[in-house]
Amino acid sequence: MTGLIGRDFLSLADLSPEEVRGLLHLAAEMKGRKVTPHCPKLLGLVFSKASTRTRVSFSAAMFQLGGQAIDLNPSVTQVSRGEPLADTARVLDRYLDVVAIRTFAQEDLETFARYAEIPVINALTDLAHPCQALADLLTVREQFGRIEGTTLTYVGDGNNVAHSLLLGCAMTGANVRVATPQGFEPNPDIVEKAKAIANGRSEVTVTQDPIAAVKDANVLYTDVWASMGQESEADDRLPRFQPYQINNDLLAKADSEAIVLHCLPAHRGEEITESVLEGDRSRVWDQAENRMHVQKALLASILGAA
Amino acid sequence: MTGLIGRDFLSLADLSPEEVRGLLHLAAEMKGRKVTPHCPKLLGLVFSKASTRTRVSFSAAMFQLGGQAIDLNPSVTQVSRGEPLADTARVLDRYLDVVAIRTFAQEDLETFARYAEIPVINALTDLAHPCQALADLLTVREQFGRIEGTTLTYVGDGNNVAHSLLLGCAMTGANVRVATPQGFEPNPDIVEKAKAIANGRSEVTVTQDPIAAVKDANVLYTDVWASMGQESEADDRLPRFQPYQINNDLLAKADSEAIVLHCLPAHRGEEITESVLEGDRSRVWDQAENRMHVQKALLASILGAA
Amino acid sequence: MTGLIGRDFLSLADLSPEEVRGLLHLAAEMKGRKVTPHCPKLLGLVFSKASTRTRVSFSAAMFQLGGQAIDLNPSVTQVSRGEPLADTARVLDRYLDVVAIRTFAQEDLETFARYAEIPVINALTDLAHPCQALADLLTVREQFGRIEGTTLTYVGDGNNVAHSLLLGCAMTGANVRVATPQGFEPNPDIVEKAKAIANGRSEVTVTQDPIAAVKDANVLYTDVWASMGQESEADDRLPRFQPYQINNDLLAKADSEAIVLHCLPAHRGEEITESVLEGDRSRVWDQAENRMHVQKALLASILGAA
Repeated sequence: MTGLIGRDFLSLADLSPEEVRGLLHLAAEMKGRKVTPHCPKLLGLVFSKASTRTRVSFSAAMFQLGGQAIDLNPSVTQVSRGEPLADTARVLDRYLDVVAIRTFAQEDLETFARYAEIPVINALTDLAHPCQALADLLTVREQFGRIEGTTLTYVGDGNNVAHSLLLGCAMTGANVRVATPQGFEPNPDIVEKAKAIANGRSEVTVTQDPIAAVKDANVLYTDVWASMGQESEADDRLPRFQPYQINNDLLAKADSEAIVLHCLPAHRGEEITESVLEGDRSRVWDQAENRMHVQKALLASILGAA
Repeated sequence: MTGLIGRDFLSLADLSPEEVRGLLHLAAEMKGRKVTPHCPKLLGLVFSKASTRTRVSFSAAMFQLGGQAIDLNPSVTQVSRGEPLADTARVLDRYLDVVAIRTFAQEDLETFARYAEIPVINALTDLAHPCQALADLLTVREQFGRIEGTTLTYVGDGNNVAHSLLLGCAMTGANVRVATPQGFEPNPDIVEKAKAIANGRSEVTVTQDPIAAVKDANVLYTDVWASMGQESEADDRLPRFQPYQINNDLLAKADSEAIVLHCLPAHRGEEITESVLEGDRSRVWDQAENRMHVQKALLASILGAA
Repeated sequence: MTGLIGRDFLSLADLSPEEVRGLLHLAAEMKGRKVTPHCPKLLGLVFSKASTRTRVSFSAAMFQLGGQAIDLNPSVTQVSRGEPLADTARVLDRYLDVVAIRTFAQEDLETFARYAEIPVINALTDLAHPCQALADLLTVREQFGRIEGTTLTYVGDGNNVAHSLLLGCAMTGANVRVATPQGFEPNPDIVEKAKAIANGRSEVTVTQDPIAAVKDANVLYTDVWASMGQESEADDRLPRFQPYQINNDLLAKADSEAIVLHCLPAHRGEEITESVLEGDRSRVWDQAENRMHVQKALLASILGAA
C-alpha cells in the first residue's frame, strides 16, 4: 500500500476501490502475523466526542506499530479557548506524524486537513465513519471468505455509518441495502456516489421496508437510533424506528447463515435485542477488534511502514 | 513467577501464600537490577476515582517494562454514557494486554474480569487494595530483612487497606492487629479469612484499643479517616477517630525501632501528626515508591516476562 | 551540555549565558540530524493550565528521544483534593525521571523543585516562560544566522514571555526592547537582572513608546493582551493596548527585513492583525515547531543523553 503514503483518509471515496481492497487484504494479513512493521511515529487523537473503541483501538494500533498515540481531548487544549482550527492544525502539524480526528462537522475535518501537511484520518464525523466501514468489511471477509457478492443490509438511522457502508460495499462489490424510516434516509449525494461506484455491478438500495431489505441478506447491521448529540430526539424517534429493530423475527427473514454486526455501543431493546446481540449470529466483538486491525494497516500504509 | 501468567489479581486471596512471597521476592530483586525484563505490552487504566500514586506508579511500571499505559478515565469513555460494563470489558479485551481497575464496587471489578479474557488487576476497590499491601510488605521486608514474625498494627478506619493488610500479613507470617473505633471494624469475612490463613501460626487481632494494639509493634500504619466518597461523614468521624491518631505518644508505645507507614495522601493533624509523618521513623516515601516496584513485578509475572 | 545533567530549569537565570548558547547550538544541531539520542525516560507533565503547544511539544520531544510523557492533569490527581504540593512532589519524584510544570505561581514551581530530587522544568509560570524564549531565540538564530547584535522588540503586556525574552536576549547578546502601556511594565527585578547580564554590551530598554521601540528592530514580538486567568480584564485592557498592536503600520517602522513572532494562541485584530500573522514576515509556525526542538535538547541535556 505504498500508494497511500502521506495521504489523508477523510472518506472512503479518498481511496480507489483497488486501494480499499488492498487495505483490507493488508489488514487481514497483518492480523495473522506475529511480527508487526516497525513504525515509531506519534499519532495525535483530536476527539471532540467521547470514545472508547475509537480512542483505544487507535492507541493500541499505533502502540503495536512501535509508536504512541497522544490524546488531544479538546477540553484540555487551547481549542476550547477559541483558537481557530487552522492555527491548531498548523501547530500540531509540526509536532505529530499523523492525526486522527473525531468531530461533528465534516467541514472541520476538511479544514484541519487543508492546514496540516501531515496525514489526517477521519475517526468519525456526522457525515462518515470510514474506519468503521473498513472494520465491518474485514469482518465480512473473515466470515464468508469474500466480500464481493455478499449482501449487507443496514436497518435504522441513515447516518454516518450507513454512509460509509454504502460506499464501502459499492467499492468492494457487496450488495448494500439501507432501510430507514421516512425522513431518516442517508444523504442522497452519498447514495448517488455509491450507485456510480457500483455502476450496476452490485446492488445499492435505499428503502423504507426493513422486511424486504433483509431478504437473503448475509449481514444485518444496525447502529443506535440517536447518536451523540441527538439524545434529545430519542423519544420522538423510538416509535418510528421500532419496525427497524434487529430482533429474532427480523433475523429469521435473512439468509439462514446471516451474521449480525453493530458498531457499538448497543442499546439493548432499542435497535437490537439482547438475544440477538448476545446470540450465536452476533459478530460484534470480532467487529470491534477489527477496528484496531484496519487502523493499524491504514496507519502503516499512510506512514510508509506497510 | 510463571505460575501467574494470564491470571487475574482481584484480591490477595487470588494468590497462594507462596505466590505472595514469591512476588515480593521478585519485586525486591527487580528493584535492585539495572536491567528490567522486556515486556512491550499495553496496560489499560480504568479509573473511576482520582489518583496520583496509582495511576503514575502503574504507568511508570509498564513504561519501565518497555510497554505503555493508556488512561481510560471513564469520564471520556462511553462508560459514562451507560454502556454496560460487560460490553466495555469485552471490547477493551480485544485491544489491551492487561487492565488495572480502580472502582468503588468490588462487584464491578469482578464483572469486568468475568467478561474480559485478559488479566485484570485490582488497583483499588472499596473492599480491597492488594497492590498497596504488596508495597507495604515490601517496605517491611526492606526495613527488617524479613516479614515473618514482625508485628504490624493498623489504627484507624477498617477499610480496604486494612483488609488487604490483614490478608497480606497472614499470608507472609506477620502478626497483624487492627484497631478501629466501634462501628468501623474491618469486614468480618475478611478477618475470618485472615485467621484461617494464619491458622494460629501468627496473630490476627481486631480491637478497639489502640494502646494495646501498638505494644511491641514493629510497624504502625494508618490511612485517612474518610476515604473518597465519604468526605461528608468526616465531621462525625473526627472525634471518634481521635484516639487512633498516630502521634508521638502512640509511637512511643510501640517497639523502639518501629517504623510508620501511610498509604497517602496524608491529612496532617487528623490520622497522623506532621511530626510523625515527617519524622525519622516515617517510611512513607519509600513505601510509595514500592507501589511501582511491586506492580512492575506483578505485571511482568502476569504477562509472562518475569 | 553534560553540565546540565540533573539540574532544574526554573528560569533562564538558572543557566549561564554560555549554557544558554550551548543549548541553542545543540537544539539547532539535533534539529538537523536524522538520528536522535536515545533517552528512554519518563517525563511527567503537571499542568494546571490548558495547553496545546506546551503539552504536545513536550510529549513529542520526549517521544522522539525514545521516552514517554505522562499527562498529570491535576483535575484527575490528588492535588485537586488538597494534598500538599510537597507530598505530591516527593511521590512523583520516585516514579518519574523528569517533570515539566505549568502553573500560575513561580513559588509553587520552586516548592515542587525543592521537594523533588528529579530535574524540574518550568513549562510556564506567571513569572517566566523560559522554554518559549529558547524557542524564540532558536528562530532568530535560524533566520539571521546569529542572535548577537540583532534587536528584538516586544510590544504589549509585560508578562512572563517578556520576562524570559529580556533575560534570554541579554544572555545571548541581542538587544531587547519592551514597549508596554503604563502599568503593564515587566517586573523591575527582571529588568534589572537583564541589564546586569547585558552589562552594557547590548541594549535593554523598557519604554511606553512602541514607535521608538520598533525602529530598526529585526524581530517584532507580541503575545495576547490578557493571558489565561486575566480574561475578565480584557475589556479594560483593549483600548490601552491598541497602540501596541502589531499591524502593517508598525511593521513598516521596523527593519525592512524584520520578522514577526508570536507565542500563540493569537487573537487576530487584537495584539496582531490577520495580515501580519498570515503575512510573509511571520515566522510563528516555525517558532512553534522550535518549542519541540529546544525542549528536546533541554531534556537530552538534563537527562544526560545529549
